[in-house]
Amino acid sequence: MLNQDGSFNVDRRGLKYFEEKGIYHWLISMRWTRFVLLLFSGYVVINFIFACLYMIAGTNNLDGMKAVTFGGRFMEAFFFSSQTLTTVGYGRLNPAGMWSNIIAALESLAGLMTLALATGILYGRFSRPSAKILFSHNALISPYKDITALMFRIANQRSNQLIELEASISFSFLNKHDRSHREFRNLTLERSKINFFPTTWTIVHPIDDESPMRHFKANDFLDSEAEIIILLKAFDDTFSQTVYNRSSYRAEEIIFGAKFNIIFGQNDKGVVTVDLHRINEHEIIPLPEYS
Amino acid sequence: MLNQDGSFNVDRRGLKYFEEKGIYHWLISMRWTRFVLLLFSGYVVINFIFACLYMIAGTNNLDGMKAVTFGGRFMEAFFFSSQTLTTVGYGRLNPAGMWSNIIAALESLAGLMTLALATGILYGRFSRPSAKILFSHNALISPYKDITALMFRIANQRSNQLIELEASISFSFLNKHDRSHREFRNLTLERSKINFFPTTWTIVHPIDDESPMRHFKANDFLDSEAEIIILLKAFDDTFSQTVYNRSSYRAEEIIFGAKFNIIFGQNDKGVVTVDLHRINEHEIIPLPEYS
Amino acid sequence: MLNQDGSFNVDRRGLKYFEEKGIYHWLISMRWTRFVLLLFSGYVVINFIFACLYMIAGTNNLDGMKAVTFGGRFMEAFFFSSQTLTTVGYGRLNPAGMWSNIIAALESLAGLMTLALATGILYGRFSRPSAKILFSHNALISPYKDITALMFRIANQRSNQLIELEASISFSFLNKHDRSHREFRNLTLERSKINFFPTTWTIVHPIDDESPMRHFKANDFLDSEAEIIILLKAFDDTFSQTVYNRSSYRAEEIIFGAKFNIIFGQNDKGVVTVDLHRINEHEIIPLPEYS
Amino acid sequence: MLNQDGSFNVDRRGLKYFEEKGIYHWLISMRWTRFVLLLFSGYVVINFIFACLYMIAGTNNLDGMKAVTFGGRFMEAFFFSSQTLTTVGYGRLNPAGMWSNIIAALESLAGLMTLALATGILYGRFSRPSAKILFSHNALISPYKDITALMFRIANQRSNQLIELEASISFSFLNKHDRSHREFRNLTLERSKINFFPTTWTIVHPIDDESPMRHFKANDFLDSEAEIIILLKAFDDTFSQTVYNRSSYRAEEIIFGAKFNIIFGQNDKGVVTVDLHRINEHEIIPLPEYS
Repeated sequence: MLNQDGSFNVDRRGLKYFEEKGIYHWLISMRWTRFVLLLFSGYVVINFIFACLYMIAGTNNLDGMKAVTFGGRFMEAFFFSSQTLTTVGYGRLNPAGMWSNIIAALESLAGLMTLALATGILYGRFSRPSAKILFSHNALISPYKDITALMFRIANQRSNQLIELEASISFSFLNKHDRSHREFRNLTLERSKINFFPTTWTIVHPIDDESPMRHFKANDFLDSEAEIIILLKAFDDTFSQTVYNRSSYRAEEIIFGAKFNIIFGQNDKGVVTVDLHRINEHEIIPLPEYS
Repeated sequence: MLNQDGSFNVDRRGLKYFEEKGIYHWLISMRWTRFVLLLFSGYVVINFIFACLYMIAGTNNLDGMKAVTFGGRFMEAFFFSSQTLTTVGYGRLNPAGMWSNIIAALESLAGLMTLALATGILYGRFSRPSAKILFSHNALISPYKDITALMFRIANQRSNQLIELEASISFSFLNKHDRSHREFRNLTLERSKINFFPTTWTIVHPIDDESPMRHFKANDFLDSEAEIIILLKAFDDTFSQTVYNRSSYRAEEIIFGAKFNIIFGQNDKGVVTVDLHRINEHEIIPLPEYS
Repeated sequence: MLNQDGSFNVDRRGLKYFEEKGIYHWLISMRWTRFVLLLFSGYVVINFIFACLYMIAGTNNLDGMKAVTFGGRFMEAFFFSSQTLTTVGYGRLNPAGMWSNIIAALESLAGLMTLALATGILYGRFSRPSAKILFSHNALISPYKDITALMFRIANQRSNQLIELEASISFSFLNKHDRSHREFRNLTLERSKINFFPTTWTIVHPIDDESPMRHFKANDFLDSEAEIIILLKAFDDTFSQTVYNRSSYRAEEIIFGAKFNIIFGQNDKGVVTVDLHRINEHEIIPLPEYS
Repeated sequence: MLNQDGSFNVDRRGLKYFEEKGIYHWLISMRWTRFVLLLFSGYVVINFIFACLYMIAGTNNLDGMKAVTFGGRFMEAFFFSSQTLTTVGYGRLNPAGMWSNIIAALESLAGLMTLALATGILYGRFSRPSAKILFSHNALISPYKDITALMFRIANQRSNQLIELEASISFSFLNKHDRSHREFRNLTLERSKINFFPTTWTIVHPIDDESPMRHFKANDFLDSEAEIIILLKAFDDTFSQTVYNRSSYRAEEIIFGAKFNIIFGQNDKGVVTVDLHRINEHEIIPLPEYS
């Protein structure tokens, strides 16, 4: 159900495109190439429209024109518009007549407002907080004290300080008796919150007598199309904002009987090192009860 | 008591208009047409005032003027002002005398500051987070386990990801014995928080022995002018902010004996679909205890 | 201890002025008249400095100068600087020599950056969220059920929607035996949180057997220099931010034996009205146990 | 493990520099001198690139050039670029040909966008909230009621109002039996939250029977490389944001047997004074059980 980018794979009908998206959301979440293209073509279109208006007002109202052909005069009007919109205003070309003055006065105001929105959105896109969490590729069922536990390992991919990191995990599976019905259960964690997150965190759900997984064999996970859905919440000290991160493990991504290797070390200067390349490294430990 | 837009229908006396509103609140919450009109007329007024100042300073202090009549010179001073305020500064017209230079230097500074406020508010209006929640038109009293329950259904109208959605519901009604006194009770919910909100959520208040609704028949709801007041809180992952949403059901909007239809499905590719047009769809199930 | 503006009346020694304030805090919290004056004089000073630089570079490097005297040339350099700093750039005056070009290129960059800070702070000042809460002038000791209670009444002075308003009240008094020691106790409230705040809220601390006020007579409040310290927290739906509000009642502001009058009504259209002028209105109800 | 600036001393391998940092984080957290240098050199480089483009388009397409040598023309193109990028646009130099017009139109748009980012980041750097908390240089083990307690003292170094200050303290030490394993324990506090923070706060962990420190002698702290890790969280009323602050005490910074002196006083006007220079002042009180 959860897409790679953290959005949900659901088709919601009965909404128009912009009603669903919201223009701000659309502008702030579109891809960069598309955003730059949109900005650029909007700039061309607006200048084209104002160039037409200056032509209608009469180019003899624009002082300083040199071109004599219609095309040349339109071109000059177009560039005069761009100089007004961006408030560069070189001034060789300048409005002399009443109408061209009115159009230019409105264009410079409209230009300031539109470009303020554009720059605001540009900066909003740029400064959007996002926790980049590295997840181990697999979730493991590992021996844990006298029982077993579901475990996965995460690391902070950025050097942003994440503070008060909280995890909240759900277990979703198709009902055994009615496969059209998908159930959701919360999984209790050995520890659900850490104050600091400098290295890695292995999140552990002990499969005890209370666990909704207690009767699941390896086959049951696959048959019931089980999915582990993860919500992480933290305060990002760089952006001074709360950030969330979502991910999930499908049944095929669970390894039944394995243990994560330690990826800590110490360098020459005695500094703790952690090798994020090895975040998914684990060794197989057969668990007879899951075969 | 609650208006359609989520504000309260209360007349608060003893406050002046701006004391109550606050200028920022006033500017950020007014309608778009009004805001644009205000911006535009503010622009005209400011330019008019500065045009007068340039006239007082003497138009011979403005280099490059072509007009000879008073009206023409005023017009040029007006447009020179607009070129200064927006910092376009074409420069055909430019201040030559001491006083016109001082006025222009102040105007360009004031212009930058004022337009910064205007663009800030414009962007603030544009990027204001708002959860658009679709509510079922009716709240239903439905069979629930062995008892009954009050239910209504909500959906996210935007594709914004809402995270950690919490509902908090109050029941308000006129006191049976003293109808001038309105009582407020919290309603406990079967589930008051969900981590994700990709499709719909049916919010359920079981009418058990603890419920303040347990002795209410259909008539009692109407007689006591009962109202269900809803506060939703979530984290909007697009705006990276906490958003709230308010709504209410009046007694006439409650259906006594009905059940929501399932509006989920699956499309050709196996993707879950949800038809938001049908959010209020329900079938009648007579409940003898409510007649 | 608490000043009128919500700050604390404490003299903290051993810090330099800006170390304590922080420049941003200083700029955002100073009075408006001071801020505008600072902005204006900063503008004059920066232009003066750049005018000197242009003079040093030689005014023959500035094309388009008309003045011939030293003072006149300095004046023109000064206004040329202001045209560069604000990016108006009329262009009659323009840099022709190498050094004046370098100075102008740096000034326009520096100008953009400085004015961006100035406009940012201006907008930050303007859009700073602040809950304006109206407090009853007095706190009352009123009859309450079989006992008495400390009560005061608040109202929202703005039409901002305040959501999830929480109150947290402390009781501070000088220790009976050691008057150099000031004690702080939390007061439990009949209700410490409300979802909505459309009208008024009477905050009630029942003086029961657990209350730290249970043995205080009217004299004891005065003798021990007692103070009720109030912290209100809410989500402001206009600014989409959490806002706080502080206030306090000194012993002399407590009335021992009084009850708030109801200030609700209904207007012609059946809309609830509330008269904020009367927020402190109360009638005296003698309480023998407090004399 | 915790550096002076609150970051963690951990070497995380397997990430590229910008993947780890994020460009925004990099720009907002670099030192001021570096930021200004980067801004300045970016400005020079961009103008250099555009100067080349104008040269390629042909300088006869730039109206108003005076220079005749190649170097002089390049210089003029360079400064024309800076006038376009900052939207000063004096206009003595102005684009006349088609290509120079296109380049200038793009440059003014790109300039507005780039400078918007630069000013946004500049303001973001400037307005970043940060709680400056002054910590006593030492943590003390002091007599406390019938037992002992770990204590340290903090003060607000800024005049920002910090509201709802919460402390959360961890105790980290090497496992006695396996020194390659570092343990973390939470320490319960006598009081973990205060509503206001006008003066100082002495944070107290009573070393009772539940404390993980109960069997630690002075030597044990040193042998096990013990560290007290502190996380403070508050709402900053100036920035209207939640701020965090981290610090730590190493074993060598703990004094076994000492008590903080009172640093409060009263000035002539009866105002409470607090002398922050004396925050670490303490007197030695030998504790036999720690020797």
